[in-house]
Amino acid sequence: MSSEASQPEQQGDESKSASKKAAKKEAAKLEKERRRQEAAALAASASNFSIEEDPLAANYGDVPLPELQSKAPVDTGNWTEVGALSEALKDQRVLVRGRSQTIRSVSKNMAFLVVREKGFTVQCVVTAIPDVVSRQMVKYVSGLSRESIVDVEGIVSVPKDAIKGATQQVEVQVRKLYCVNAALPTLPINVEDAARSEVEIDKALQAGEQLVRVNQDTRLNNRVIDMRTPANQGIFRIQCQVGTIFRQFLLSEGFVEIHTPKLIAGSSEGGAAVFKLDYKGQPACLAQSPQLHKQMAICGDFGRVFEIGPVFRAEDSYTHRHLCEFTGLDVEMEIKEHYFEVMDIVDRLFVAMFDSLNKNCEKQLEAIRKQYPFEPLKYLRNTLRLTFEEGVQMLKDAGVEVDPLGDLNTESERKLGQLVLEKYGTEFYILHRYPLVVRPFYTMPCYDNPAYSNSFDVFIRGEEIISGAQRVHVPEFLAERAQACGIDVKTISPYIDSFRYGAPPHGGFGVGLERVVMLFCGLNNIRKTSLFPRDPLRLAP
Amino acid sequence: MSSEASQPEQQGDESKSASKKAAKKEAAKLEKERRRQEAAALAASASNFSIEEDPLAANYGDVPLPELQSKAPVDTGNWTEVGALSEALKDQRVLVRGRSQTIRSVSKNMAFLVVREKGFTVQCVVTAIPDVVSRQMVKYVSGLSRESIVDVEGIVSVPKDAIKGATQQVEVQVRKLYCVNAALPTLPINVEDAARSEVEIDKALQAGEQLVRVNQDTRLNNRVIDMRTPANQGIFRIQCQVGTIFRQFLLSEGFVEIHTPKLIAGSSEGGAAVFKLDYKGQPACLAQSPQLHKQMAICGDFGRVFEIGPVFRAEDSYTHRHLCEFTGLDVEMEIKEHYFEVMDIVDRLFVAMFDSLNKNCEKQLEAIRKQYPFEPLKYLRNTLRLTFEEGVQMLKDAGVEVDPLGDLNTESERKLGQLVLEKYGTEFYILHRYPLVVRPFYTMPCYDNPAYSNSFDVFIRGEEIISGAQRVHVPEFLAERAQACGIDVKTISPYIDSFRYGAPPHGGFGVGLERVVMLFCGLNNIRKTSLFPRDPLRLAP
Repeated sequence: MSSEASQPEQQGDESKSASKKAAKKEAAKLEKERRRQEAAALAASASNFSIEEDPLAANYGDVPLPELQSKAPVDTGNWTEVGALSEALKDQRVLVRGRSQTIRSVSKNMAFLVVREKGFTVQCVVTAIPDVVSRQMVKYVSGLSRESIVDVEGIVSVPKDAIKGATQQVEVQVRKLYCVNAALPTLPINVEDAARSEVEIDKALQAGEQLVRVNQDTRLNNRVIDMRTPANQGIFRIQCQVGTIFRQFLLSEGFVEIHTPKLIAGSSEGGAAVFKLDYKGQPACLAQSPQLHKQMAICGDFGRVFEIGPVFRAEDSYTHRHLCEFTGLDVEMEIKEHYFEVMDIVDRLFVAMFDSLNKNCEKQLEAIRKQYPFEPLKYLRNTLRLTFEEGVQMLKDAGVEVDPLGDLNTESERKLGQLVLEKYGTEFYILHRYPLVVRPFYTMPCYDNPAYSNSFDVFIRGEEIISGAQRVHVPEFLAERAQACGIDVKTISPYIDSFRYGAPPHGGFGVGLERVVMLFCGLNNIRKTSLFPRDPLRLAP
Repeated sequence: MSSEASQPEQQGDESKSASKKAAKKEAAKLEKERRRQEAAALAASASNFSIEEDPLAANYGDVPLPELQSKAPVDTGNWTEVGALSEALKDQRVLVRGRSQTIRSVSKNMAFLVVREKGFTVQCVVTAIPDVVSRQMVKYVSGLSRESIVDVEGIVSVPKDAIKGATQQVEVQVRKLYCVNAALPTLPINVEDAARSEVEIDKALQAGEQLVRVNQDTRLNNRVIDMRTPANQGIFRIQCQVGTIFRQFLLSEGFVEIHTPKLIAGSSEGGAAVFKLDYKGQPACLAQSPQLHKQMAICGDFGRVFEIGPVFRAEDSYTHRHLCEFTGLDVEMEIKEHYFEVMDIVDRLFVAMFDSLNKNCEKQLEAIRKQYPFEPLKYLRNTLRLTFEEGVQMLKDAGVEVDPLGDLNTESERKLGQLVLEKYGTEFYILHRYPLVVRPFYTMPCYDNPAYSNSFDVFIRGEEIISGAQRVHVPEFLAERAQACGIDVKTISPYIDSFRYGAPPHGGFGVGLERVVMLFCGLNNIRKTSLFPRDPLRLAP
């Protein structure tokens, strides 16, 4: 490899300068400290406390901008994460950066500051000590605004009693404290309010106390602050984990990740409303699913593919579970003999996902549960599979009449979820062999009864999260099916033509990432699991 | 966990039926075979060869549709992948599904068929044998169209001489052969032609032979076939691997994957042209980068985030390296002290990526190289970093005059790439401290000289693949910078307001996935590394 050929030269350069490095680092450290003190002194002199008044003024103050413009040499080894503060660091000097979550002035000589970083919090104590910490510093800290970014340097101490107001069970005895970036004194919402559970609010109300309840729209309008609540930190880390497991599992099963275009000519397949736009003079729209292109990848010999990407739906849905833009997890694969091969992937993938979330995301789930209580998802080792007919029969037996060849509405789906839970003890199951008429034209009919189809939906807690099926791979039959569904075959000829050059039998499914997270965590609104949700009324922030 | 509570019941069901399963499976197998023979007989009777003429007619023919509608029970254990065919399977009966890549009729008694699956190929021999393989079957096979999907059942044999026309060094002595899905007899392009290298075409030309050259547009118009070439199979598997390493590396460094909206109100930040659309009566556009939202995630306490998603640019660029839609790999992170912290991530991430590609994708790289010859990328263990000023000086020393406070054009970038390669032996390097005026308004100026900025570009083989910088995190200064750049501050107030509630110093970068693959593999056009490219003239397929 050519890069290796050039390596000795590079390493030569490295070792030549190796001896100088340590000395340089030390000098840089000293220089940095000098500059910091200079800057802090400058800042302090400009503030209420003049340098004459406080000989210790260099130990605190607002950091002036130039200090934050990559002036100091890199030495991230100086920093300790709040989450890493523990008894093991007792009596050691640490430097942390975080937010001033709460500030409590006890007296002229003492103030408490809870500093938060990535969801972890630590109590910092500022006590006036002659020649070490000045009263002016205590005053400065007391005047900080909440949510400001601060650098705190101090000694780790271990208090006798357990600390209730912070995650870390040590304190920092502050020696220096600088404000890196000040938040507005009055925030549109407080993190504390946004993090409050309904249970807490109700309990307080019963005790005659009225606590602030931050409603959904206010949260979303101020998402930058709302995101900081422990529950939201948990939700989006879980979302990340769902995507990660989805990928890892599929990669390990020989799937290839693809990226299909979101800008497509004309209008997308299927019935849902599309967002239209002008593409260099051509009519175009935003893909409402990667359906066509993932099937083309199968016809292009990739065997098994998946995609994670945005999906656009211009529908006027104002429900708790619809968005105009969401993240689609899409899968398509060759099948040898049966659409059950696709269901097998769904089964193993999701059981692996739930197992992993329960095992590896305990902290996050706990943080979510604290604000939004929920029961852990009940699921089986081998996912329950019911035919649509069996589902209809269960509903019928329970006194719910549904059209045996129609679709289930949201209410029937919920009811069936209840019945399944009671009978089989699972909140995760697959319903397959749907009536053909309620599925898209490209769905393969059943071999033994064309009123049904080789298709399935998957449910969590009574709500649909996945739709999948075997596809029609024979071009002539596909055209016939399109026509039967009232689609002008001419408008979809590029789609049909894709299957004219040899097409293997195949199937696939699509999952809504936000729905998976919402339902796994028993949340009541999909806007809670989209970082910046888009619905018919919301296009910001 | 509730799911475990319900497990015994489920396992009980399982073991109850366990004894029946084996018997059932055997019965199903027999039944399946019977049905297959029935169907094949039916198909054969409908074709030229009547069942009277050929008592072995059940061994070949077109598979009728009902057989492919998930009729058979699932038993994928029957199948062997073409790539798995080896001497170890000698004398065993195997069943494979693949494409009839080439069909060669030798005589009435013999035909050869090369079957391809996922880039692997095997030679299948159809020889007439009394009471086993009929002459009619040889004729049927000879008449198959290329690229059809076929099921081949036969005995693995090991020929004396090496096989040149296939990847697998065994043959299959065919006993049964069914066509699952027939390709059109005449394809718009042949895979063989699409897979041909320029070198091969030129060589043939010198020998007086004119071979078909498939041009780019024809390829892209017939992408479903074009995708099947070994080079394309390699390119998109490499693309998948780049995304995988990008993710794995960042996850291991504490980054969180996020999904930001592509539909945004008004027009995106920055200068590039945007695709506009109507969003439920509101003016909207497609995000030309996740810049604002990934920065908001940093202000929302996620610390370190990344995103992989589509990026839309409505620019009228007709170059070899611009697309109207591409896959952006975006990173944003808090920085403690210096923008070098961001460059350190770039450095380690890409060295890890190149190492992994070279190590784990040898076959894919070889397949690409065969059609599009290229030299392995030269890169150093520690990525070279030059300041913009140093770069300008190198160009100047080489007689190339460039504006020291302007941007480099494509030509200068290429030239500098050459100079760097000659001097430092690397084709991958970072150029940092760009002039402020050529960077977006949100770029942090240098502390010591506001004519420069805390920004960088990264180059592979003389072409830019990454742009990154420290961002301005102070809202007042951000407004000032926007104004200085001629931007109406009112139009970006939501962006600026995001930094009013405490914003940590931060920086990040964006990478074009297609460019990384193109330049790592030394390809000459970005359309080769986008599965379905979108440019000002192309919106299909």
